[in-house]
Amino acid sequence: MHELVEGLFKKKFSNEILDELADSAVIKFLPSKKSYLCFTTDSYTVNPLFFPGGDIGKLAICGTINDLAVMGVKPLFISAGFIIEEGLDYEILAKITQSMAEVVAQEGVKVVTGDVKVVEKNSADKLFINTSGIGIGDRRVNLSKKEIVPGDKVIINGPIGEHGLAVLAARGDFDFQTEIISDCAPLTDLIQKIINLRKSPSKSAAIPGIKFMRDPTRGGLATTLNELVDGMDFGVSIYEKDIPIKEEVNAACELLGFDSLYMANEGRVVVVLAEGDAEPVLETMRNHPLGKGSQIIGEIIKEPKEKVIMKTKIGGSRIIDMLVGDQLPRIC
Amino acid sequence: MHELVEGLFKKKFSNEILDELADSAVIKFLPSKKSYLCFTTDSYTVNPLFFPGGDIGKLAICGTINDLAVMGVKPLFISAGFIIEEGLDYEILAKITQSMAEVVAQEGVKVVTGDVKVVEKNSADKLFINTSGIGIGDRRVNLSKKEIVPGDKVIINGPIGEHGLAVLAARGDFDFQTEIISDCAPLTDLIQKIINLRKSPSKSAAIPGIKFMRDPTRGGLATTLNELVDGMDFGVSIYEKDIPIKEEVNAACELLGFDSLYMANEGRVVVVLAEGDAEPVLETMRNHPLGKGSQIIGEIIKEPKEKVIMKTKIGGSRIIDMLVGDQLPRIC
Repeated sequence: MHELVEGLFKKKFSNEILDELADSAVIKFLPSKKSYLCFTTDSYTVNPLFFPGGDIGKLAICGTINDLAVMGVKPLFISAGFIIEEGLDYEILAKITQSMAEVVAQEGVKVVTGDVKVVEKNSADKLFINTSGIGIGDRRVNLSKKEIVPGDKVIINGPIGEHGLAVLAARGDFDFQTEIISDCAPLTDLIQKIINLRKSPSKSAAIPGIKFMRDPTRGGLATTLNELVDGMDFGVSIYEKDIPIKEEVNAACELLGFDSLYMANEGRVVVVLAEGDAEPVLETMRNHPLGKGSQIIGEIIKEPKEKVIMKTKIGGSRIIDMLVGDQLPRIC
Repeated sequence: MHELVEGLFKKKFSNEILDELADSAVIKFLPSKKSYLCFTTDSYTVNPLFFPGGDIGKLAICGTINDLAVMGVKPLFISAGFIIEEGLDYEILAKITQSMAEVVAQEGVKVVTGDVKVVEKNSADKLFINTSGIGIGDRRVNLSKKEIVPGDKVIINGPIGEHGLAVLAARGDFDFQTEIISDCAPLTDLIQKIINLRKSPSKSAAIPGIKFMRDPTRGGLATTLNELVDGMDFGVSIYEKDIPIKEEVNAACELLGFDSLYMANEGRVVVVLAEGDAEPVLETMRNHPLGKGSQIIGEIIKEPKEKVIMKTKIGGSRIIDMLVGDQLPRIC
């Protein structure tokens, strides 16, 4: 099993760094004084392994790419650590590895180091994947929450809740059917496009004035916005009517008693930026296949500090708190 | 649980990079044209979590440090991904995290990014930890198997088999007792000392002539030596009488029917180097607390190629093959 799996990975992820097969990958990049490293890790335990729109492999690559991309850096190198329950069907592994390889090839990143552990039956639930990633960034792209001021706008690139709902439906715990597929996608290209607006000679130096980006995965939009304001001298106000959500997602959430604001997304990014820069960035996002549904969904407010306030469709307002624990476990 | 654990990790591993708590760690190192990156990953699934001489946490840090150290680079940044079975005692996690924090502090590395996933009861066996690591190396240190020639010596820094046997005994599957403790230890300092012999002005430029280093973990010394010769134009001959092993380990292996050559080590390094440089390197190793038991255990031979030959104590010789699969699962 072990040998088979290693053979599979070596073949699917082959590149000149991985092929060396040393204890560590040797990365001879040409550094510059303007560059810096970003480093991230995530373990993926999604259940089931396959869901509409993706599988644990696609998720493991996209998730780690996105954690780097939202820092404004280019993801370049990825590690893959597999914990496999003994007896897992080889075909399942081959399919999942193929999903990973496809995103890797499409995105121009490289899996440069990996590890396989096989544990006894019932010591793990089929398959867990850890991916860590390294990106190299440009020091001139300086995202900082400290630059955020009241009036700054909040943008999201598309409708919320689709990943969480797709996984939930695939799990079969609830008696409902849906056509919803996960939004799982790698965001590097979309994000690099809006960041690089800055470099366009025809635009003012201040464009795009982006101060914060985050992918609203586990815990959804509500959690990301709470993390945004946590410990800061500002709050955020969002407008329920402007938050993009598919009718089907809304209906399913209501039926099941879930709040879509807390549902995981895997192809969404929340962007906070200067008010005057919101329109050109929004336009650029809407011209991208992964940003067609982009919307300004709110703005930074002076008071109440550290709170997320939602202006509801019926004209009221409510505080959107941080959830304690996960609304849904093993969604990513 | 989730919140508790994250709080624990943030506190135990606190450093200026981790404390930023972004999606990715931002590492603003000052690169030079002479530097390069090494990147490695390993998942740890050792069973039991605690064993004489260590625990899964110490192992997860030492193992990843060693994978970098044997490349001749300095380990600097580590990621930690935890997959926790619901209901695992918080005190156990606190102890394991403390072990990790101690090695991290002692070695001057930093845990800069992390992730926690809690899965349902029976979906994982207590705790798995993935650590990935980044080291930064000096391009002047050029380890390459291609430089190896017949006559080169093979050194190991101490007795074999102790980690594997300690874990096995702790597991309680076999009815035997032993005082053996795991050799689990971080090897950076030892390895940097022998590498830096090169820089000493009183030594010739060729010292220490090191061409290959590897930590003989899963699959033990036999596997590492087989990996050394695989695909190369040489073989390796080792002398049974010179391979350091404690009498207790030897006796226990014979009793249980295991071959100590395949037993995992977690604080050992195999070094292949030019014959003329073996003595000064050996002396340096023996002067180090983690190298007191260093021995020349063999040499590179022209024929048979790609084979590991052991000269036995009684004057015969036998081929040491690669094992198919693990002799013992979940030993690391």
